[in-house]
Amino acid sequence: MLLINGECADQLQVSDRGLHYGDGLFTTIEVQAGQPVFLAYHLGRLQLGCARLNISPINWRQLLIEVETLSQQHYQATDLSCAVVKIIITRGSGGRGYRPPEDCHATRIVSIHPFPDYPPQYWQDGITVRFCATRLGLNPSLAGIKHLNRLEQVLARAEWSDSAIQEGLMLDNKGCVIEGTMTNLFFRKAQIVYTPKLTQAGVAGIMRMIVMELLMRNGIALLEIEVSQAKLLAADELFVTNSLIGLWPVKQLEQHCFSIGSLTRDVQTWLAQYKHDSLRLV
Amino acid sequence: MLLINGECADQLQVSDRGLHYGDGLFTTIEVQAGQPVFLAYHLGRLQLGCARLNISPINWRQLLIEVETLSQQHYQATDLSCAVVKIIITRGSGGRGYRPPEDCHATRIVSIHPFPDYPPQYWQDGITVRFCATRLGLNPSLAGIKHLNRLEQVLARAEWSDSAIQEGLMLDNKGCVIEGTMTNLFFRKAQIVYTPKLTQAGVAGIMRMIVMELLMRNGIALLEIEVSQAKLLAADELFVTNSLIGLWPVKQLEQHCFSIGSLTRDVQTWLAQYKHDSLRLV
Repeated sequence: MLLINGECADQLQVSDRGLHYGDGLFTTIEVQAGQPVFLAYHLGRLQLGCARLNISPINWRQLLIEVETLSQQHYQATDLSCAVVKIIITRGSGGRGYRPPEDCHATRIVSIHPFPDYPPQYWQDGITVRFCATRLGLNPSLAGIKHLNRLEQVLARAEWSDSAIQEGLMLDNKGCVIEGTMTNLFFRKAQIVYTPKLTQAGVAGIMRMIVMELLMRNGIALLEIEVSQAKLLAADELFVTNSLIGLWPVKQLEQHCFSIGSLTRDVQTWLAQYKHDSLRLV
Repeated sequence: MLLINGECADQLQVSDRGLHYGDGLFTTIEVQAGQPVFLAYHLGRLQLGCARLNISPINWRQLLIEVETLSQQHYQATDLSCAVVKIIITRGSGGRGYRPPEDCHATRIVSIHPFPDYPPQYWQDGITVRFCATRLGLNPSLAGIKHLNRLEQVLARAEWSDSAIQEGLMLDNKGCVIEGTMTNLFFRKAQIVYTPKLTQAGVAGIMRMIVMELLMRNGIALLEIEVSQAKLLAADELFVTNSLIGLWPVKQLEQHCFSIGSLTRDVQTWLAQYKHDSLRLV
């Protein structure tokens, strides 16, 4: 099921700048029993991204309705309790070359997909991760935004096919650890939780923001810093987050093993509760 | 006029990875009286790009025929002596997330467009250029390739609307001058011609390659170097190149004026001759 500017469709104008330049943004939303999870956060980040890239106009009210309608319809049609909604917003069609045309109208694409079948032990026993060779370019003007220029992630994810490895961590060109190919990164050392600064590279994920909020709400010291590989390997606890998985503990990074500590379990509990509450409020 | 995998179409499957991740390449080709100019060079660079991104399979023979057919048909239909063919190659559709699916089939898109109406004085009297604030991220694994991740160029080109400025020069994050938003850069100091190294950022344009070839063929010393803004402003001659414009002299960069020297005129002459010969050979 797919909507382009509110119309059922499965094809896009070839002239769309999303295809020609990756001139747009996207977000991926968990759907529980027909309800999009943390939808307001996702729309909020899309709005920030559109402001950063100066993409407009977007009928946000209409987009909200489209996401909710598609989620409901899919639930009624399939009876699947879990699904995924993907929103893509592009600057729209046209323009001679890179220069955005003045009369550009943004394209909004809303699609719904089956939830990926991750094994339960990823949440329970943790995952195995590696370091990727592909580096993230430094670019403050794009850092943090979930834009459509994702070749670095594609190249990084193509580095391994071993199904025993669930995620790859990416460094920037200065050698700082930034994120996973599809996740953000947190670790605890002693009494403090750290997560990489995303001012030069990386995507500021919705789940990252929510986990930061929950940590602070529960009185846990949190710092955004520049993270070296050594610092990461010396961590007491390590976990990754995104909007679909929530939180996966990391049990192994390259040859180094981590134990899954009480903080990791606490955050998983807080997340589950927060998600439950946010859905109940709708 | 537009062909997707050889079929007349104007719409693309929304699931194409070119839209979702900018997972692909493109090139822009001048067409003279129905003949694509330097087509072999363009296809050669596309092949290198596909090898770098591991995109396949592509029926190159078929693509060649499509470009030539579309160019001919457009010429017969419109009688326009100049046109532009754009080729986009994407990895194709599908895949869960960033990981490319094993059975991916590349998408080839060939479209033809009117030639942009650049005033003749751009070639004769030169153009005015500025420095852009938007920086190019450093990424050796993507440097040189004309891939579909072009948000940096979109942001840079959106920095100015003053029609008195024809091009903007982009620096990388280390402060080295790399290229124009849509052109490559050459300058002469004394007896040596310089052009920026493109090992960390930038697009290695077809016209750049041809101009380098012509300079060397005519016994002119050429060096690829790291270029500072100061070095550029101290140049004796400065010009930009791409496949549509060929060569434009730069008469002014920010507040600094340049005279158009004999080397610039020589290269323009050599280019015209080379283009004429290459078309005659077809």
